[in-house]
Amino acid sequence: MPESLKDIGEFGLIRRIDELLKREGVQAPGVTLGIGDDTASFKARSGYEILVTCDAVVEGRHFLSRHISPMELGRRCMMLNISDIGAMGGHPLYALISLGLKNETLVTDIEDMYRGFLAELHPFGASIIGGNLTKSGDGIFIDITLIGEVEEGRAVRRSGARPGDVILVTGYPGHSAAGLQLLVQSLVSEDHPLVRAYNKPSHRAREGRAVALTGCARAMIDTSDGFLGDLGHICEESKVGALLVQEKFPVSEELKEAAKMLKREPEEFFLRDSDDYQLIIACGKKDVDPIRAAIALTYSGPVTEVALVTAPEEGIRLLLPDGSKVSLSAKGWDHFR
Amino acid sequence: MPESLKDIGEFGLIRRIDELLKREGVQAPGVTLGIGDDTASFKARSGYEILVTCDAVVEGRHFLSRHISPMELGRRCMMLNISDIGAMGGHPLYALISLGLKNETLVTDIEDMYRGFLAELHPFGASIIGGNLTKSGDGIFIDITLIGEVEEGRAVRRSGARPGDVILVTGYPGHSAAGLQLLVQSLVSEDHPLVRAYNKPSHRAREGRAVALTGCARAMIDTSDGFLGDLGHICEESKVGALLVQEKFPVSEELKEAAKMLKREPEEFFLRDSDDYQLIIACGKKDVDPIRAAIALTYSGPVTEVALVTAPEEGIRLLLPDGSKVSLSAKGWDHFR
Repeated sequence: MPESLKDIGEFGLIRRIDELLKREGVQAPGVTLGIGDDTASFKARSGYEILVTCDAVVEGRHFLSRHISPMELGRRCMMLNISDIGAMGGHPLYALISLGLKNETLVTDIEDMYRGFLAELHPFGASIIGGNLTKSGDGIFIDITLIGEVEEGRAVRRSGARPGDVILVTGYPGHSAAGLQLLVQSLVSEDHPLVRAYNKPSHRAREGRAVALTGCARAMIDTSDGFLGDLGHICEESKVGALLVQEKFPVSEELKEAAKMLKREPEEFFLRDSDDYQLIIACGKKDVDPIRAAIALTYSGPVTEVALVTAPEEGIRLLLPDGSKVSLSAKGWDHFR
Repeated sequence: MPESLKDIGEFGLIRRIDELLKREGVQAPGVTLGIGDDTASFKARSGYEILVTCDAVVEGRHFLSRHISPMELGRRCMMLNISDIGAMGGHPLYALISLGLKNETLVTDIEDMYRGFLAELHPFGASIIGGNLTKSGDGIFIDITLIGEVEEGRAVRRSGARPGDVILVTGYPGHSAAGLQLLVQSLVSEDHPLVRAYNKPSHRAREGRAVALTGCARAMIDTSDGFLGDLGHICEESKVGALLVQEKFPVSEELKEAAKMLKREPEEFFLRDSDDYQLIIACGKKDVDPIRAAIALTYSGPVTEVALVTAPEEGIRLLLPDGSKVSLSAKGWDHFR
């Protein structure tokens, strides 16, 4: 019988995780105390600000355990948080993992989930320094707090966009959600590129940091709520409007084909759907080139000018191919609706 | 009809929480960016280490919503985390609140829960700087990450106890658990002092900080897993044993009476039961007085010498009133057993 949590108990599991982290993890710089005390501790570098974010993933809500392996689940949860640190221009350093588990959860599954966390943290030299284990109700939850650093005054917020700025977006937002629909409706196999975009999402954290270091970006956000929802966050925090140009949307041939199969418009996937972790960046027109160059250091996908920042009273509008303009409601993904 | 989450949605709730925090919260020093971006950020003070801890509370597991008001629940969850920062000798500064909620959760209940968080944070000038909202399964969960600071090198760990040290404990561990049993079995009214100890638990974070500042404590921990479980953590991390003296246990008259009603030994409540947030401190014999004086600055309850630190091979033993010694197994509260 494979070992479950009720076989080894909470302290048995803590020991197993501790051993795994000692064997397979790294120690991030600045840690003065890791797992195994009332708190963890670290020393911040002088000249840096500390960034902190948290994101929880709930079984049955954000994932179905029959559709994702524990390792992939771990990667995805950590990736979400790394994406947020990157969208500020920061470098991830320390993670705290809070798990709500069931008695029958297998110990090897938990270990594989931690391997997923580590696989995402390793490229940054980041480490797991603490956490919490508890029993959950009918589904497990994984709540990660990720701490990073950014040079003082260099963080790129949502609030700096100004009328006249250009809006850039990286990659192909919409791919991941279309891939999930193809998968759920069993229309393609698991190695379809859009399904891969869903199953193995990647962040643009390195590119976000490179953009921040240029000093050229006025606002930046990752697309976790869908392009339109996240552009809406920038508009709200910056108190501006935006004019989107439909003809410029980065809609790939694969997305067009998928949209046809799914009887939806590809532009709708781009605008409304979540689960891609790309970047939206606002900058002055003259700063587009240095920002493209910074992103190109580590990312070969497209960086597309899709919109212009406008006055706040104009709201968010879409310029259609026939020259007409329609108003859009910037509703992002809402967990309770 | 009172408003629920499905009436106002995730972003409606974020707005309501934001407004409540602006109205009723304070801004902790060092915050450079609060709620409303991809991450929060702060600037650490030079000469300080950052402490970080997280603790999750799950409905049906740690609390039953019919037995605790949302405000009390909020206080309790924040208190657990403040207790951990205090047990290192730190000062709490910034909290991130991650909530798993149900569609039918009432908005006013969430607001009251936040008032509970703030009631515990205010005395420290600490603030809520971020968080996450999601839908949970069959019960809500509240996961708090609390960040604090401590003067560099001043944190008191679990690992510094040495043979010959004295073990001190504050207050009356066991009161809270006995109160819960009295309540569950409907043996007393809600204003019974032990029931109050359960319903309105308090931390010794101020006292922990005062102890750390004396520089006299060799090890410290809070009693969240029960006295014996947490003394076990000190012994394990410090690689020492301990000899407990039963006659010295701080067993109050109230606990003796309650134990009689519950047909259990009062010493068992003291040793095994959790839900009190007192401090266990190891120090040299000559340092007992300055530590007592530091605690007395803000706490009028007892500080009791209950044990001596011994060599590791002796394990944890209990000296009984008849002079005999028995070995104890230092099992703390285990979520999966």
